[in-house]
Amino acid sequence: MSTTVSPLAPTDVPEMPAIAGVKLATAAAGIRYKGRTDVLLAVMDKGTTAAGVFTKSKCPSAPVEWCRARLKGGKARALVVNSGNANAFTGKTGKQSTALTAQIASKAVGCATGDVFLASTGVIGEPLDATKFDGVLATLAEAATPDGWMDAATAIMTTDTFPKVATATVKLGKARVTINGMAKGAGMIAPDMATMLSFVFTDAPLSSAVLQSLLKTGVEDTFNAITIDSDTSTSDTLLAFATGAAAEHGAPKISRASDPRLKAFTKAFYEVLADLAEQVARDGEGARKLVEVIVEGATTKVSARRIAMSIANSPLVKTAIAGEDANWGRVVMAVGKAGEPANRDKLSISFNGIRVAKSGARDPSYNEAEVSEVMKNPKIQIKVALGLGKGRDRVLTCDLTKEYVAINGDYRS
Amino acid sequence: MSTTVSPLAPTDVPEMPAIAGVKLATAAAGIRYKGRTDVLLAVMDKGTTAAGVFTKSKCPSAPVEWCRARLKGGKARALVVNSGNANAFTGKTGKQSTALTAQIASKAVGCATGDVFLASTGVIGEPLDATKFDGVLATLAEAATPDGWMDAATAIMTTDTFPKVATATVKLGKARVTINGMAKGAGMIAPDMATMLSFVFTDAPLSSAVLQSLLKTGVEDTFNAITIDSDTSTSDTLLAFATGAAAEHGAPKISRASDPRLKAFTKAFYEVLADLAEQVARDGEGARKLVEVIVEGATTKVSARRIAMSIANSPLVKTAIAGEDANWGRVVMAVGKAGEPANRDKLSISFNGIRVAKSGARDPSYNEAEVSEVMKNPKIQIKVALGLGKGRDRVLTCDLTKEYVAINGDYRS
Repeated sequence: MSTTVSPLAPTDVPEMPAIAGVKLATAAAGIRYKGRTDVLLAVMDKGTTAAGVFTKSKCPSAPVEWCRARLKGGKARALVVNSGNANAFTGKTGKQSTALTAQIASKAVGCATGDVFLASTGVIGEPLDATKFDGVLATLAEAATPDGWMDAATAIMTTDTFPKVATATVKLGKARVTINGMAKGAGMIAPDMATMLSFVFTDAPLSSAVLQSLLKTGVEDTFNAITIDSDTSTSDTLLAFATGAAAEHGAPKISRASDPRLKAFTKAFYEVLADLAEQVARDGEGARKLVEVIVEGATTKVSARRIAMSIANSPLVKTAIAGEDANWGRVVMAVGKAGEPANRDKLSISFNGIRVAKSGARDPSYNEAEVSEVMKNPKIQIKVALGLGKGRDRVLTCDLTKEYVAINGDYRS
Repeated sequence: MSTTVSPLAPTDVPEMPAIAGVKLATAAAGIRYKGRTDVLLAVMDKGTTAAGVFTKSKCPSAPVEWCRARLKGGKARALVVNSGNANAFTGKTGKQSTALTAQIASKAVGCATGDVFLASTGVIGEPLDATKFDGVLATLAEAATPDGWMDAATAIMTTDTFPKVATATVKLGKARVTINGMAKGAGMIAPDMATMLSFVFTDAPLSSAVLQSLLKTGVEDTFNAITIDSDTSTSDTLLAFATGAAAEHGAPKISRASDPRLKAFTKAFYEVLADLAEQVARDGEGARKLVEVIVEGATTKVSARRIAMSIANSPLVKTAIAGEDANWGRVVMAVGKAGEPANRDKLSISFNGIRVAKSGARDPSYNEAEVSEVMKNPKIQIKVALGLGKGRDRVLTCDLTKEYVAINGDYRS
């Protein structure tokens, strides 16, 4: 956890309302560092449904495997998240740690171990001593309150510089329901299903199948459309929980993803995901610029995404942005290496609305001083028009600074 | 061009012998900077055959397109290389520049424009003023000598910190033939057919088809197996020229790649390519460590290559190496994100021969102090054993330092 907050941190942080059926508590269990809040327990009422999407890594962490197996039931009563240790690449010990943690949590909460979800973030390859949760989780279960969302979002941070929360209230049927979300990010972020860790809660009465469908569609243009450093984590986890408590004040029970009453909720749900994903990009390790890459005129949306990711992951593009240099030559390079259809002589490129290149060459009206000025902006939009078709996509990333190298050159030692 | 030579520069630089049929000269044409040698002219005798491999970028530079078209003839009389301007993404102007440069060169050398090969390196997107070659190339053609290989290798440098040359002498039939090569690299290096620029010359009497076959096979485990920053240049060019002059003292004319007399030559040729490619990795922008990634036990060689590249291109692995940290957790992450078959619980990882992880968890015998010591070495070998099959591959890269960010954060301004 850095002492300096990212200059890209959101300026207005929402008041996080309570979600009926969810209680939270945090503690310092000494997982890796002393005196640092590192455990979050969320206790959910009976009847809560669960859904999740996870890293596509071939070497997933033990908690990811645990959660995948638990999702079959579609029910949740508790979520335990720790920072400081990812419990990844920990072999049998890792599996035993997840089982023991779930067992301790199930006793503390009074539920089946199968209703406990787990997530861990931090160093990879170190055994996680789950006995440290003994006692801690029981105390947390008693202390849990409907408030404390900011504390919860803070407890799951590693190299994050600010807690990431988002909330929305929306009508479902005639009842108002609430969606609360939190996320952590910082480095090893090129989510391939979900970001490192993100949790979304709602009191809407949704079946787990509906929730899963919302997540699966929702991540595509939110968490899956951000990248910090092209490195996909072993622990990427996005979980959603629906307590259904809003049914008491009239919210309809939704059991089909195609239910038309879900429309406003779906929009609000996606907005919460998009908000959290953008905050993750804003807190990329060492980030000084938020970079929005828009690719349009590609043959398809998939092709646009690949080209946008090629630009967003290019070290040369990212260092140029850090240097406040509208180096469109490097954007051309990144388009060219993406392996997707592109015609050099149809390419146009603009930075923050100023077109610097068109028809495959420098824009004659291009004024270095003018574009240099807009590059000082903390938000940089790179727009590439391919002129081939109607495929369009958008990806968020950040610049690559010396600070990123510093953070990651002595993170573990 | 940096004033500080990479600490990874080779300590013994070979004496470069003459190649019968090749003459070289360099000059300062003021392409981008004043008073800096930035043009190389190589003049080749009649009968010289040519072959080349180029970037797979969808946005190749104008000289790349020029050379591709020239290769059909398979003959060469002149090579003009400039640094300071890549003549890439320069539209029609770029095409006109290549035509004008070739015209000036053909007059200077007394050959057809179709026998002139061109390569440019430097900034992308700036028009290249080919009239600057007027007069210069004529002077160079007169001044060209069989020596001056180091000057030639220096003239093609951009952010390189040392000139890269390699040589080999080998028997072809009963005659001795020579192979001389040079390369430039530094940044935007993730060759996808060849590195930025590399030129290899020999007096062996090889048909252009044989030369092309040698190049195509030879780049696979040499230039295509290195990466500095995952960014593939628009200008990657590897050209080979065979003057055939050795035929005069008895070297047999080779017109089939399968000719058994070519065996020793092929080996020497590949060694020259491998030597140059390693020098490019040793001169990665900001590099302080040469990193050799070996992946074995993969299902296939192709799969091993993809996993090795995933490791070699991971910013988190590269920054850890810069921090002298044997962070095998990040290696696991990079294996996992490669999308190739891998079984977490069979993985073993070692750094410079010290095994830090086996069977999907920390090696019990792993001693942090011992591995910390070997991480101080300027050459780091990361070996990953997947335990799945017989696929094996090797990739060279370098670490990612603050210096890389500094070099690329204000390269263009």
